[in-house]
Amino acid sequence: MDPIALWKNYKQLLCDVPSVGLKLDTSRVGLDEAFLDAMDESSQRALSAMAQLEAGAIANPDEKRMVGHYWLRAPELAPTPELKTEIESTVADVKAFAADVHAGRIKPATSPRFTDVLLIGIGGSALGPQLVADALGTKRDKLRVHYLDNTDPDGFDRVFDRLGSKLRSTLIVVISKSGGTKETRNGMVETQTAFAKRNLDLPAHAVAVTGVGSELDKEAVNSGWIKRFPMWDWVGGRTSVMSAVGLLPMALQGLDITAFLDGAAEMDRATRITNARANPAMMLALAWHRATAGKGTKDLVVLPYKDRLLLMSRYLQQLIMESLGKEHDLSGNTVNQGLAVYGNKGSTDQHAFVQQLRDGLDNFFVTFIVVLRDRATPPAKANFEVEPGVTSGDYLNGFWQGTRQALTDKGRLNMTITLEKIDAHALGALIALHERAVGLYASLVNINAYHQPGVEAGKKAATAVLSLQQKVVKYLTESARQGFTVEEIATAVGQPASAEAVHHILEHLVANRRGIVRSGAKFKAK
Amino acid sequence: MDPIALWKNYKQLLCDVPSVGLKLDTSRVGLDEAFLDAMDESSQRALSAMAQLEAGAIANPDEKRMVGHYWLRAPELAPTPELKTEIESTVADVKAFAADVHAGRIKPATSPRFTDVLLIGIGGSALGPQLVADALGTKRDKLRVHYLDNTDPDGFDRVFDRLGSKLRSTLIVVISKSGGTKETRNGMVETQTAFAKRNLDLPAHAVAVTGVGSELDKEAVNSGWIKRFPMWDWVGGRTSVMSAVGLLPMALQGLDITAFLDGAAEMDRATRITNARANPAMMLALAWHRATAGKGTKDLVVLPYKDRLLLMSRYLQQLIMESLGKEHDLSGNTVNQGLAVYGNKGSTDQHAFVQQLRDGLDNFFVTFIVVLRDRATPPAKANFEVEPGVTSGDYLNGFWQGTRQALTDKGRLNMTITLEKIDAHALGALIALHERAVGLYASLVNINAYHQPGVEAGKKAATAVLSLQQKVVKYLTESARQGFTVEEIATAVGQPASAEAVHHILEHLVANRRGIVRSGAKFKAK
Repeated sequence: MDPIALWKNYKQLLCDVPSVGLKLDTSRVGLDEAFLDAMDESSQRALSAMAQLEAGAIANPDEKRMVGHYWLRAPELAPTPELKTEIESTVADVKAFAADVHAGRIKPATSPRFTDVLLIGIGGSALGPQLVADALGTKRDKLRVHYLDNTDPDGFDRVFDRLGSKLRSTLIVVISKSGGTKETRNGMVETQTAFAKRNLDLPAHAVAVTGVGSELDKEAVNSGWIKRFPMWDWVGGRTSVMSAVGLLPMALQGLDITAFLDGAAEMDRATRITNARANPAMMLALAWHRATAGKGTKDLVVLPYKDRLLLMSRYLQQLIMESLGKEHDLSGNTVNQGLAVYGNKGSTDQHAFVQQLRDGLDNFFVTFIVVLRDRATPPAKANFEVEPGVTSGDYLNGFWQGTRQALTDKGRLNMTITLEKIDAHALGALIALHERAVGLYASLVNINAYHQPGVEAGKKAATAVLSLQQKVVKYLTESARQGFTVEEIATAVGQPASAEAVHHILEHLVANRRGIVRSGAKFKAK
Repeated sequence: MDPIALWKNYKQLLCDVPSVGLKLDTSRVGLDEAFLDAMDESSQRALSAMAQLEAGAIANPDEKRMVGHYWLRAPELAPTPELKTEIESTVADVKAFAADVHAGRIKPATSPRFTDVLLIGIGGSALGPQLVADALGTKRDKLRVHYLDNTDPDGFDRVFDRLGSKLRSTLIVVISKSGGTKETRNGMVETQTAFAKRNLDLPAHAVAVTGVGSELDKEAVNSGWIKRFPMWDWVGGRTSVMSAVGLLPMALQGLDITAFLDGAAEMDRATRITNARANPAMMLALAWHRATAGKGTKDLVVLPYKDRLLLMSRYLQQLIMESLGKEHDLSGNTVNQGLAVYGNKGSTDQHAFVQQLRDGLDNFFVTFIVVLRDRATPPAKANFEVEPGVTSGDYLNGFWQGTRQALTDKGRLNMTITLEKIDAHALGALIALHERAVGLYASLVNINAYHQPGVEAGKKAATAVLSLQQKVVKYLTESARQGFTVEEIATAVGQPASAEAVHHILEHLVANRRGIVRSGAKFKAK
C-alpha cells in the first residue's frame, strides 16, 4: 500500500480516547470496509452480550458465576446494593490500611515501621501486581514489593537471602482466591520457617487476600493475622488486578489506586459505545479476528517501546491465552481456540527476534505500544540531547517508526497503541481496554472467556505423582537394604504402568539426598 | 501412546551427558525410527558442515566471516596460533582485571572500591550477561550488575535514580561489537551526563568491550578509559556470551568463568560425535525439525521449572529466532524460515497460559527444563518439608510431571532437558547445547544461521525518520508563528508521501514540549 493510502487509512480507522490519552491505530492490520461490514452483526451481538454480562448475567455458564471485574471500577454498576457496598468498602479499607502502615500505626513488633512487602501468590495473584509495580514504581515508593510466585525452593531461598534482616520489617501479603493453591501454601510455610529462624511472629506481619471462608481465610482468623481482604467468586484471577489483589500491594507501594480505577472506568465508558468503529475494544477484537482468521492462526507479538511496560507481554499472555485458549465453543463443538502471545520490548528486540519478524515466518502480527512522553521529569531534562536537536527519546520513537515501516514493507501486519504517558490512570485504561477486547473477541468466536478447565488436569496429575512418591518412599524404606529397579518398584506399589513417573521421582529424591540412593539401575533406601 | 510404550521410548531416545549432568529426553516429540532413518543423510551433512565451521571455514558466506564461538571455550581449536593466543589472553585479562577490581587495586577516585557495574549494551551485548547474572547470582556477588539496554529516556532515569550516590563506586562497562550501536551510544552519553552532574569523571570508571578500531574503541583510547577488551568479527552478538561480552561482567560479579567455559567445552565434545542418535545437539535439532516439519509450523515454548532460568526463553528467543528467521535459503530460494520462541517459567505458567497449551490451539511444542537439585544449601535445609514427607521441590517436580502428562494426554508434543543442578558449568553446557542445535538445524533446512540482514531495514527507516524530524523542526522554526497541517509540512520539506511519519514526529515533539505546539490540526513553533 502506498504511504498516502496508509495515512488516509490511519486517519480513518484511528480510535482516539482523549480522556485517558490513548489512541488505537488498526490501519496496518488488514481491516477494511468489507470486513467491518461483514462483522457488523457479530460485533453488535458481542457488544450486547457484554452489556448483559455487565448487568450481572451468568456469563460463565459451566461455573454458574457472574463476571464482575467491570464493577470494581464502577461499583454503581454492580447488580445489587450489597455488592456495591462491598466493593466500595474494600477500596476504602485498602486505602485506610495502607495509610496506617505508612504512618506506622500498623507496624511490626521489633521495628518502627514496615519497609518491605512480600507478596505470596501465583498467576492471577502475582502477575497483575508485578506489572503494576514495575510500570509505576520509583525509588520513592513507600514500601518495596518482593514476590514468591512459584514453589521453587531455591527461588524461596533467594528472596529470603536478599531480604535478610529486613524480614523483621516486612509485611507479608498472601493472595489466593481459593485459599488452597499449593504453590502459595508452600510459600507461606517456607515464610513461616524463615520467620521462626529469626524469632519473628508471622501473624503479626501477615495479611490475607482470599475468599471468605477459604482455608487461607480460616488460617488468618485462627492465627490472628493483622487483616483480611476479600476476593469474590465473580472476579477471575486474571482480571483481579483491580480488586484487593492488585490494589493492596499498589496502595502499600504508595501508588495512586484512585487514578488507576478511574482510568479503567474511563476506558470502560469509551468501550461501551455501540458504534463498533469508534469503540477501541471492539476494534482491537476485530483486528485480532482479522489478523488470525478468528482462529489464532497468527501469534500476537506485544512490543512496548518503553522499559516500564516490559511485563505487559507476560500479563497479556495470561489474560489472553487463559481466556481464549479453549477446547470447546459455547455450543459444545471442539474448536481448540486460542491466541498465542509473546513479546519483550523495543527497541531492544530489534537486536534480537525482529530479524525473524521481518524476514522469516509470517506467523504473527505485532501490537506496538508507544508512550509519547519520554521522561517523568520536567521539560528541561526531557530536552537533554544526545546529538544536536535529537534526544534518546527521538531515537526510541524513530526506532518504533522504522520497525513499523520495515514490517509493513514486508506485508507483516501490525497495529499501534499510543499512550500520552505512563501513569496509574493510563495503565488502568490500557488494562481495561484489553480486558474488554478479550471478552468481545470471545463472543465473536463463541467461547467462554471466563473459565479454565484445562488447568485441572495438570494439577490432578501432579497430585497423583506426589501420592505415588509417598508410596515409593514407603516401599523402599520398609524394604530396607535391598535395591530394586524402577519397574520392580512400580509393580510393587501396584502401579506397573507408572514406571516412568517412578523413575523421575527417584531421580529427584536421589539428587536431593532424601534417603534414597542409586546403584546402577537399582534404587534403595539408605 | 500407553505409558509402558512411552517409558520404553524414553529409555531408547534419552541422550545422557553425565560429564555436565544434563539429559535430553525427546521421547514425546514425535521422533521415531522412520523419521530418524529418513533424516540420517541430512544429519550427517549437518554434522560435517559443523566440523568445517569449527575448523575455520567461511560459514557466513555473505559476510565472508568465520564463525568461531566454539573456539572461545577450546582455544586449541582456533584455526591460527594468533587467534588461540588472543582468546587465551583475553580470558586471562578478564580474570586479572576482575581480581584487581575486587582487591581495590583498580578503584574509583572517590571510593575505596567499585561496588556496582553498569553494563551498557543491547541485544547480544546484554541478553547473555543478563541470563548469566540472574541464573547464577546471589546476594554474595562481589559486584552488583545493572543494565542500560535500550534508548528509553525514562529507563535511563530509573536506573540512575536507583543507583543514586552509588554512581561514584560504579564501574561502567560499555559493550558494542561494531562500536556504533545508537542505543548504546545514547546510554553512554546519558551516563556521561549523570557523571558530570555528580562531578565524577567517566573515563576513570569506564571499560569498553568492542572491536579494535571501532568508534567506541577510539573513544576509549582518546579519553583514557581504564581498559579495553576485544570483540572479534568471528563472534556473533547472539553467541558472544563466552567472549569478553559475557565473561567480563560474570567475572566482576564473582562468578566462575572457568567452570562456565569448561561446561560449554564439555558439551561441545559430547555434541561433536557423529552418531546422531547419541548426540544431544543433533537430537535437539531433529526434534525441532520433526515438531515443526522443518518449517517452524509450531512455536517453541520454553518452560524451565526453576526461577533462576526465567530469562532462558528470552535468551533462546534471540539465539534461535535471529539465527533461523531468514527470508532466503543458501540456494537463494525464498523460504521465510524461522522458529518462534516464547516462555516464562513453571509451575507459575500453569496458572497462566498453560490452559491454552492443553485445551487450545495445537500450534506449539514445549521444551521443559528441569533442575533436579532443589536448593543450593546443604541437605538438611534441602529436606525441609511443607507437609509430612513432601518438600516444596517435590511439588515443583510433581507439577512438571503433571503438566507434561496433561499435555501428552492431549497429544501436545513436548520434550525435557534435565539438569542435575544449576551452576556455571551446567549453564555453559546448556547454552552450548542450544548454540550447536541452532547451527545443525540451520544446516538441515539449508539456511545461513550467522547473519541478520533483516535488521538493517528498520535501522535505515529509523535514520530516515530522524533526518525527517530535523527538517520538520527546521521548517517550523524558520516559518515562525504560522501554523501548518501535517500534509503542508510534509510537502514543504519535500516529502509529501511522508505525512504519516511527520504526524508521529510532531505528536512526539509536542508531548515532550520541544518547542512545537499544536492548535487543532495545525502545528507551529512556539
